[in-house]
Amino acid sequence: MTTATPETCTPPLARRRDGAIEVLTLSRPASRNSLSEAMLAALAEALADIKSDRAVRAVVLAADGPVFSAGHDLKEMTAARGRPDRGHGYFVDVLGRCAAVMQAIVHLPQPVIAAVAGTATAAGCQLVASCDLAVAAREAKFCTPGVNIGLFCSTPMVALSRNVGAKHALEMLLTGDMIDAETARSWGLVNRVVAKDEVLATALALANQIAAKSAYAVKIGKEAFYRQRELSLSEAYAYATRVMTENMLAHDAEEGIAAFIEKRNPTWADR
Amino acid sequence: MTTATPETCTPPLARRRDGAIEVLTLSRPASRNSLSEAMLAALAEALADIKSDRAVRAVVLAADGPVFSAGHDLKEMTAARGRPDRGHGYFVDVLGRCAAVMQAIVHLPQPVIAAVAGTATAAGCQLVASCDLAVAAREAKFCTPGVNIGLFCSTPMVALSRNVGAKHALEMLLTGDMIDAETARSWGLVNRVVAKDEVLATALALANQIAAKSAYAVKIGKEAFYRQRELSLSEAYAYATRVMTENMLAHDAEEGIAAFIEKRNPTWADR
Amino acid sequence: MTTATPETCTPPLARRRDGAIEVLTLSRPASRNSLSEAMLAALAEALADIKSDRAVRAVVLAADGPVFSAGHDLKEMTAARGRPDRGHGYFVDVLGRCAAVMQAIVHLPQPVIAAVAGTATAAGCQLVASCDLAVAAREAKFCTPGVNIGLFCSTPMVALSRNVGAKHALEMLLTGDMIDAETARSWGLVNRVVAKDEVLATALALANQIAAKSAYAVKIGKEAFYRQRELSLSEAYAYATRVMTENMLAHDAEEGIAAFIEKRNPTWADR
Repeated sequence: MTTATPETCTPPLARRRDGAIEVLTLSRPASRNSLSEAMLAALAEALADIKSDRAVRAVVLAADGPVFSAGHDLKEMTAARGRPDRGHGYFVDVLGRCAAVMQAIVHLPQPVIAAVAGTATAAGCQLVASCDLAVAAREAKFCTPGVNIGLFCSTPMVALSRNVGAKHALEMLLTGDMIDAETARSWGLVNRVVAKDEVLATALALANQIAAKSAYAVKIGKEAFYRQRELSLSEAYAYATRVMTENMLAHDAEEGIAAFIEKRNPTWADR
Repeated sequence: MTTATPETCTPPLARRRDGAIEVLTLSRPASRNSLSEAMLAALAEALADIKSDRAVRAVVLAADGPVFSAGHDLKEMTAARGRPDRGHGYFVDVLGRCAAVMQAIVHLPQPVIAAVAGTATAAGCQLVASCDLAVAAREAKFCTPGVNIGLFCSTPMVALSRNVGAKHALEMLLTGDMIDAETARSWGLVNRVVAKDEVLATALALANQIAAKSAYAVKIGKEAFYRQRELSLSEAYAYATRVMTENMLAHDAEEGIAAFIEKRNPTWADR
Repeated sequence: MTTATPETCTPPLARRRDGAIEVLTLSRPASRNSLSEAMLAALAEALADIKSDRAVRAVVLAADGPVFSAGHDLKEMTAARGRPDRGHGYFVDVLGRCAAVMQAIVHLPQPVIAAVAGTATAAGCQLVASCDLAVAAREAKFCTPGVNIGLFCSTPMVALSRNVGAKHALEMLLTGDMIDAETARSWGLVNRVVAKDEVLATALALANQIAAKSAYAVKIGKEAFYRQRELSLSEAYAYATRVMTENMLAHDAEEGIAAFIEKRNPTWADR
């Protein structure tokens, strides 16, 4: 699987701290930032670290090179076909780990903002759909082209179909065609479309805006968002009312409301 | 909580009948039409009255002043912190009553049309999202800014996320930023954007258009809409097929279809 | 119910094969392609045939005349009122058969693309919403006007509300108003809007594009799409991961991925 490029000397995922923001950068442009075993492991580790790091208030997920991510590493998957079980165990494992990474983004207490300067394909498109917010370059493109190689984008569609309408999702999934950034914005897959050299700065600005808020409120709100949308209306209200009552009794709401009434800046608890 | 303004001399919710339309107007502009205990009680009472009033065929929900509604009354909620339980019982009660009002709109047999001339914030935005239809002024704005005061808009998001896509909802909830009326329209939060002085007339025209139809059909249709969307496709079809069979056997369908075939105007039953 | 028009001499649904595409054409323009008993039976039969016909890789659903379909045949339904049970048994039966046809489209292994050159009304609009993809003429119109005749479009809304947002669906259902093709596109009810004389060609081009892909991948992907969207996120990922593992072990994925890596065209299995 390994190649002789200098890339193998560096970690597949670059991590840097920018104030309260953790910037994760997919750093395998020569292999189109595919979600190889190494990349998935690096993402899983980074997300686990961030989850328990109170200093991180938001995450930006970016990528080096013209491809944000091309999805699974087809060479790795093909190599597993030589095993006695024809790769069955390997596929279960790698697809499970990929789905776990996607869900780790959803369950992370901190919001995750995709900064998409290039093309996001298959599980790469799923990665964008799994983020809470997304900023795209005008040149960015999105597709779920698995159908072109006999491997329908079934796991990517779980995230995609929770971002865009049914006919839009099916158009991408059945045709495999690229959509451009403006289309992705109008369908609800990304929040902002900006010039390519402003993608990272825009994502960071959004991240910093959220980072200035109560980390406690952001954490319980994000968690509640994804839980309540799977409930019936009456269940969702019963649940959200409990969440909001707890929120009212927490320090940050007491402080935030007092500051609002007194027209001063609030001082948030650490978390 | 009370102040010495003349507002306290008048009810918080003005009610008037305009033909078959009940017009409810939030009438506490000086306190930005907040959903105070008094306002929630007045809304609950009005909705209960309307529910059993066959003469009312549709409801328009409007507001006096530049703010449609600013959401919960933070001063009332803060005052409750002085209680022995730090307000726990009060918060459970007031948030429960607010969620009950929102669901009373959803469960009302008559359609409810929001006429939003100003800014709808937090539970005020939830109120708009909970209505069946909404008309907004070009100057209207919408936001869920609880995150700015350490109190995530968890209950508003129940209604919001059932109107707009995931990334749009999260953008509003995590940033707390205002969106303008045109954005709200493109995201699906409101149906029409018109000039400010046409908001009420447009909402009334929509209400009167629906009021001219069979109240029976509107009632069972509205109820079925909210129930079927929580079911699987096959359950939804089984349920909707039962509803439509009952509808076919009711007077208004027999009369309406006969009138259609005979090219005459139908005469609806009272309800 | 029958009339003396020449239409009764021809089948209500024309079927022709165009390469790997089955083109179904509603062919009762004089009765506005209503979903009469005969039409529903013809659709059910055609869909059952196609389901087991491996040579058919995609379906285009078109219509003759200015009306795509006006929905149920109100004269047939009215005639049933003369029966001892006032039509109860008939309504249960015909509405059940209509719902079965709509679900047969959803459960068909091959994708179904609506080619809508005219007006799609009530269950005719439901037919468009039930298709996987839809192409519309600029002159096409869509509505769910049952509320105008005392018969709320309760079964059409099952399909409609799974294509468009809540306030958009309720606007159509409560007002009964027509929306034009461009509005239908922006709301997510149709994928493409083209000139009237290009509707069929555009639908066929989409169908042929999909027909060139692995029929196996399309079949399992379409099935998984509709199943996973009714599951919670974690259930959906568990399910989609199983589907994708099976897909990886199937011939077409092995062949498709190998062809992709070797930069050659894949040769798909029959199915």
